[in-house]
Amino acid sequence: MNRDDQELDILITGGTLLTMAAPGDIITNPCIGIRGGRILFVERQSLPAGYTPVAREVVDATGSLIMPGLVNTHTHLPMVLFRGLADDLPLMRWLNETIFPVEGRFVNRQTVYAATTLAIAEMILSGTTTFCDGYFFEGAVARAAIDCGMRGIVAQGFIDFPTPDQPDTSRHRELAERFVGRWQGHSALVTPALVCHSPYTCSPETLRTIKRVTREARIPFQIHLAETRDEITLLRERYGKKPVHHLRDLDLLDAGTVAAHCIWLDEDELDVLAARNVKVAHDPESNMKLGAGVAPVPAMLSRGIDVGLGTDGCASNNNLDLFGEMGMCAKLHKVFAADPTVLPAERVVEMATIGGARVLGMAEGIGSIVPGKSADIIILDLGKPHLTPLYHPFSQLVYAAAGSDVTTSIINGRIVMRNRMLLTVDVDSAMAAVRSIAADIVGAGYSRPRRRSSCAPATPA
Amino acid sequence: MNRDDQELDILITGGTLLTMAAPGDIITNPCIGIRGGRILFVERQSLPAGYTPVAREVVDATGSLIMPGLVNTHTHLPMVLFRGLADDLPLMRWLNETIFPVEGRFVNRQTVYAATTLAIAEMILSGTTTFCDGYFFEGAVARAAIDCGMRGIVAQGFIDFPTPDQPDTSRHRELAERFVGRWQGHSALVTPALVCHSPYTCSPETLRTIKRVTREARIPFQIHLAETRDEITLLRERYGKKPVHHLRDLDLLDAGTVAAHCIWLDEDELDVLAARNVKVAHDPESNMKLGAGVAPVPAMLSRGIDVGLGTDGCASNNNLDLFGEMGMCAKLHKVFAADPTVLPAERVVEMATIGGARVLGMAEGIGSIVPGKSADIIILDLGKPHLTPLYHPFSQLVYAAAGSDVTTSIINGRIVMRNRMLLTVDVDSAMAAVRSIAADIVGAGYSRPRRRSSCAPATPA
Repeated sequence: MNRDDQELDILITGGTLLTMAAPGDIITNPCIGIRGGRILFVERQSLPAGYTPVAREVVDATGSLIMPGLVNTHTHLPMVLFRGLADDLPLMRWLNETIFPVEGRFVNRQTVYAATTLAIAEMILSGTTTFCDGYFFEGAVARAAIDCGMRGIVAQGFIDFPTPDQPDTSRHRELAERFVGRWQGHSALVTPALVCHSPYTCSPETLRTIKRVTREARIPFQIHLAETRDEITLLRERYGKKPVHHLRDLDLLDAGTVAAHCIWLDEDELDVLAARNVKVAHDPESNMKLGAGVAPVPAMLSRGIDVGLGTDGCASNNNLDLFGEMGMCAKLHKVFAADPTVLPAERVVEMATIGGARVLGMAEGIGSIVPGKSADIIILDLGKPHLTPLYHPFSQLVYAAAGSDVTTSIINGRIVMRNRMLLTVDVDSAMAAVRSIAADIVGAGYSRPRRRSSCAPATPA
Repeated sequence: MNRDDQELDILITGGTLLTMAAPGDIITNPCIGIRGGRILFVERQSLPAGYTPVAREVVDATGSLIMPGLVNTHTHLPMVLFRGLADDLPLMRWLNETIFPVEGRFVNRQTVYAATTLAIAEMILSGTTTFCDGYFFEGAVARAAIDCGMRGIVAQGFIDFPTPDQPDTSRHRELAERFVGRWQGHSALVTPALVCHSPYTCSPETLRTIKRVTREARIPFQIHLAETRDEITLLRERYGKKPVHHLRDLDLLDAGTVAAHCIWLDEDELDVLAARNVKVAHDPESNMKLGAGVAPVPAMLSRGIDVGLGTDGCASNNNLDLFGEMGMCAKLHKVFAADPTVLPAERVVEMATIGGARVLGMAEGIGSIVPGKSADIIILDLGKPHLTPLYHPFSQLVYAAAGSDVTTSIINGRIVMRNRMLLTVDVDSAMAAVRSIAADIVGAGYSRPRRRSSCAPATPA
């Protein structure tokens, strides 16, 4: 134990603690000391007689569950602007008729900042303490994260056609280096990264250039990989290769690469990902809603591939609640494998915490509650009908709990939510700002006409 | 319009109303008058000048969404006792080593009443206003529903082996008739029904006997149908028939039969269900979590079969939140069909409201907000980050909302929840009672030992 007579910032006492430091580790009535943004000690029982820690703030977690904050390994936060704008459409119509045009017109530094602020409010309210984002104007995402006390990886996006923030695609390298230089080491909360949209929208040269910048800076490189069958066809036609082999041959695959989706992979591609220690961000709700497919997650885990959970952006999900992803992940793979023992609850909670931290290369700093790590901690109220009775905390988290059960959230040793009140985001202003942008989007005619549903008329009374 | 000068019980004003009376019908700033348990009027705009209704209670729904209460077409409410008791196990181990033994020892009139009271609290808190239950000691379920002001179909269960409430299986008919006689016409809230567990646990004689009682009393007959592949094999061995053909040949299939699950059906069986106007209760979360399979819901709907949503019991789900089922239903069938246009949001909301009412034979009384129907209404707070912005209410409900967004619930013209405070259930007592039973279950050794998860140890800090 590592403590002294200095005052603590926060002392958490009571409740049930899932440390995620070892499989299934549960501590009843713990004491957790926090100082300087870090976890100072985790006592497995009441404090020794005679030792009375002095803390600026004491959090009584009696009747509650304490666990590491959740890690969202794949998001496009500013896309909360387009939440529910165009659902239930064929993928190409959705992209070409709504998402791409509306992005071209409404995505700028100001709208990205406003939308990200709202997204951070939503994430804190549902238990997420670290996100991994990729979009345009990521500097505005970084600023919103810092202003709201949220931890995140912010990846500036690259694609081989003109975008709102990069009209000139010949300047990729210059823009990438400038972005990394601007944000690396700037804040304990924000890690810069770079994302290439996909192997089919980025040329081999773009992919190699951007990966090289991330490798030199030792920061994560992200990419969407094998999300749809169309991508497989396209790459075969263009390069005569499968997606993973294409990226391997470009030397893009190592432990610093986070590949999102990874649905349409064959056995050899899975072996390559495992051999290169590539990390995978699994987004079950997005994959289902877009009809993309089911990622072979059990096969990845059996090869030792690190897999985390992600929500994807709100145009394709449509929320940022990782509790929904946990439940979905556990259930989707059971029915797909016709085996209820696949992806047990503990394994899924691991994916959403320490597993996600490993995917992002942050496992030394976050993802479990042990002395020395950053204090990223959430507390859930167990005193609710849908969480009663409680036999097994991991089952309860995955199969019964919801994001709205999180009452308190601590990020980097700072309380950002207490009793569901956000302390670092003005939530009414954040909602008003996004509603105003949405009104402009509707005014510009981008809100799809409501389709007639196929439901029969109701029986008249 | 149908109104007079008499005082209203409740007047709801403002907000956005989804009537579910016609496809996609949305009314902005409605006025809804309620008296004597029924909807008296639904105004499509502000009330005419000079008409000032007098109401005992005025509900201001500004900034909220108003819609019919949700209909849960398949539950085993008392099984909240076993929520999370034994997850992630093979189906037969789960049933034989945990569920059946623990039911034999802990299911009695008192525990069923206590558990159902807690289940009703959970349902009201997540927007359900009508349930369709099937279990043992259903008289206690009926009493709990009446005491809590909840609407429900309560189906006494039959199976061909001794159960806690029916040790003598030769007395099925007598017990069935006594149950129906006791509860038919007893309360506006409760409709008695009967449920045969399945075609493989009930003999042809039992099935015919119980169906005959329900047909004579004009009440619903429920059965689990084609839930697992094993059931198909078993019936083929025993009767040389597929499940639907077996039930058809026993004359069990008509508009009064509600069949739950209906996963492993061929084209001809679907045609038979459609021709006989059999109703289907679809339970996506339970089917996924148990690895049972994916019901062919789009094929059912294209044949005109009425399909409602159900949660199943909390031993196999593990909650009673129909918002989760809506999202799961919309997404599961998209990924299974590899088509994002399958099961659009409006269609899914219909399944959870008026569609569910049709399944239960109650569409003349509930399921939509029109004058003359019972006042079963829920109100959701839209002023939350995860529900901002709002382009399309149906999308928001299915892809972004959660049960915890419901703030107010009215059942049979009575406010049962206001601002998330339950008015008809003492929720602390209900939780305490179930916790006490759960402690006995743990004490008796039925809580499965926690399995080691397959997660690797965390990286030490």
